[in-house]
Amino acid sequence: MSLIVQKYGGTSVGSIERIKNVAQRIAKYYHSGHKLVVVVSAMGDTTDELIDMAEKLNPNPNPREMDFLLSSGERISAALTAMALQNLGIPAIALSGKQAGIMTDSVFTKANIKKIDPKRILEELEKGKVVIVAGFQGYEPEKGDVTTLGRGGSDATAVALAAVLKADICEIYTDVDGIFTADPRVVPNAKKLEFISYEEMLEMASQGAQVMQLRSVDLAATYHVPVVVRSSFNENSGTLIGEVKEVESKQKVKGIAHNKNIAKITIIGVPDKPGIAHKIFAPLGEKSINVDDIVQNVSKEGITDLSFTVSERELNEALKVVQEVAKEIGAKKVLYDNNVGKVSIVGWGIQSTPGIAAKMFGILASEGINIEMITTSEIKITCIIRRDLVEKAVRALHDGFNLGGED
Amino acid sequence: MSLIVQKYGGTSVGSIERIKNVAQRIAKYYHSGHKLVVVVSAMGDTTDELIDMAEKLNPNPNPREMDFLLSSGERISAALTAMALQNLGIPAIALSGKQAGIMTDSVFTKANIKKIDPKRILEELEKGKVVIVAGFQGYEPEKGDVTTLGRGGSDATAVALAAVLKADICEIYTDVDGIFTADPRVVPNAKKLEFISYEEMLEMASQGAQVMQLRSVDLAATYHVPVVVRSSFNENSGTLIGEVKEVESKQKVKGIAHNKNIAKITIIGVPDKPGIAHKIFAPLGEKSINVDDIVQNVSKEGITDLSFTVSERELNEALKVVQEVAKEIGAKKVLYDNNVGKVSIVGWGIQSTPGIAAKMFGILASEGINIEMITTSEIKITCIIRRDLVEKAVRALHDGFNLGGED
Repeated sequence: MSLIVQKYGGTSVGSIERIKNVAQRIAKYYHSGHKLVVVVSAMGDTTDELIDMAEKLNPNPNPREMDFLLSSGERISAALTAMALQNLGIPAIALSGKQAGIMTDSVFTKANIKKIDPKRILEELEKGKVVIVAGFQGYEPEKGDVTTLGRGGSDATAVALAAVLKADICEIYTDVDGIFTADPRVVPNAKKLEFISYEEMLEMASQGAQVMQLRSVDLAATYHVPVVVRSSFNENSGTLIGEVKEVESKQKVKGIAHNKNIAKITIIGVPDKPGIAHKIFAPLGEKSINVDDIVQNVSKEGITDLSFTVSERELNEALKVVQEVAKEIGAKKVLYDNNVGKVSIVGWGIQSTPGIAAKMFGILASEGINIEMITTSEIKITCIIRRDLVEKAVRALHDGFNLGGED
Repeated sequence: MSLIVQKYGGTSVGSIERIKNVAQRIAKYYHSGHKLVVVVSAMGDTTDELIDMAEKLNPNPNPREMDFLLSSGERISAALTAMALQNLGIPAIALSGKQAGIMTDSVFTKANIKKIDPKRILEELEKGKVVIVAGFQGYEPEKGDVTTLGRGGSDATAVALAAVLKADICEIYTDVDGIFTADPRVVPNAKKLEFISYEEMLEMASQGAQVMQLRSVDLAATYHVPVVVRSSFNENSGTLIGEVKEVESKQKVKGIAHNKNIAKITIIGVPDKPGIAHKIFAPLGEKSINVDDIVQNVSKEGITDLSFTVSERELNEALKVVQEVAKEIGAKKVLYDNNVGKVSIVGWGIQSTPGIAAKMFGILASEGINIEMITTSEIKITCIIRRDLVEKAVRALHDGFNLGGED
């Protein structure tokens, strides 16, 4: 008998029929003798509809009231899922985030989980109940007001509960079969991975394979929660995300990630002295602008050029900040390019394996793709290239590293 | 400066446009310097839609989960109303029933308010905020789970809050202009009443003028809360419901109430001895069958006949119970009639004013309407008649007692 945490996304509980299917799936686990905690998202478009109503009434809705509003969506699907289970004769109870003991900080609309007191959940499990938890929400300690966890909040709820409850597994049900060697929309013969390490998943996710939000992968890695990403529409086994295995597989490159929604900013003529990088990136952080890859080359005569990428839709805001900083630190000028994209190869030990980087560059070269920037980490090598060549690059690399085909 | 509790029903907050209108109305009061606590129902058909989804998943949904589900409707409208006010530059905060301190018993789906701790409301009022409270809900003390108050629950929320906060007035906004001398659909020249006493309102409401639920009128009477029933769609002044005035108005008959959805049960040959009435009505109460008027005439030779009315849709269940009891107590037989209706004249001091009853019976007689049963109380006289004559009777009585016309 295991303790299993399951999370069903908005598509999986998007209609009465689908909630019935989810209940059937949960029932099967229940009858196999497992203890179950099930986290649900809001049904289908509920959250978008609520946001839409809110914005019609107030273009800048108060974050506290926004959370009060949005948290209803998950409460509704939690109640309905519990009822569907009860209809199958299975004892079930629906809990709000607060009732599930999920305490967050007070940052409404994008709160972070601070502490979980699973007392009520444990009590209900003890009584033999399946516990259905409204995802995406918690409460702030000062007033007990409801908070929401922002994008990917229900994944975070599930992983955090799995960590606190020391669950045997955390299953994330979604509308795809798992994590693939590349985006199947770009590479038709992309292959589903049976296993991927947390670190590789982080790179795949941050590079655009957005099945699960980064913060939840991070959380799972920190608390060593084994996670399975799988489809709620079939019985396929999904992809296990966990600790890297001791015996390395020979196949070093796990997958190809890409992202076409980036822009590049370059600061020319930056005085190369201690504290300069901090001066540039601190104000971006304060504006919550997410900086992706950063490249700084060796300096000549005490000055250097510094490039980095941001999400395309944050380019304008980032430029404003950077242009001001550039003046302050006496840099020569700021350039930008919003016609770039990136492609990465991801895999454990990639950087330390001779020849892999060279092979990547060779494949791109043979396709006539110019590399404009390179960054590397332990487990990925990223190239910034022209945006319109990204998909071609993904296919070439997927092919070149032999990732496709059947298992 | 007054403290005003307002309640807006589902129709009044039934769309984004209507919520905007409600916000405008609240704003006017706010700018006049009043302190405001506003109770809202769920938008339009939200509650019915949620019930519908629940029943598709489970024909007998668990009451606890039902309340968890349904309470979302009022949370949504409370959040949206608060946002609409904030958009007008008015500080506002949305509170759930629990946050508003509304403790109930543990009878899910039809809980009764037990205690209100208005600490949070007072704090927020102190900060100058308009407090928007999700109606129809509270929490039970054992687990802190959300409960709902059943039919008319938002009225009860408003009146109870007004009582605890010692509000100057409780305004119930609805889609009618107030309480009328008779149902305007039956009597075209029915007149809106400027004032009606709690007791008269109770009789009007229980007789079918269903603007406000009985329990809330009762609550208002118990705690001496002055209530105004008025429309949220115009500026008309509505009807004030309050303590009976010291100087009685000459007009003793306030209004005509009627109900066509009743059925009559008669037990023939009931042994006339102590405890018999209890034996008959206790099992009906246990089945939650609401018994309306009861008539028992003087007995002859130790036996009597006993008649009472029930709601038409509870007739079958009531008959089952009564037939069993009749056997037990040795009554002769049970008759029923589901082709009856009733008409009442309502007004303070009616019973003790000579000639009023006679006038009523005379009016009915002159219309050729046969009276089948009569019951009276301090403030009403009710006649049971053929159902198809009810509307004719209402019009004749409204006319005969001169209730119509302009103010």
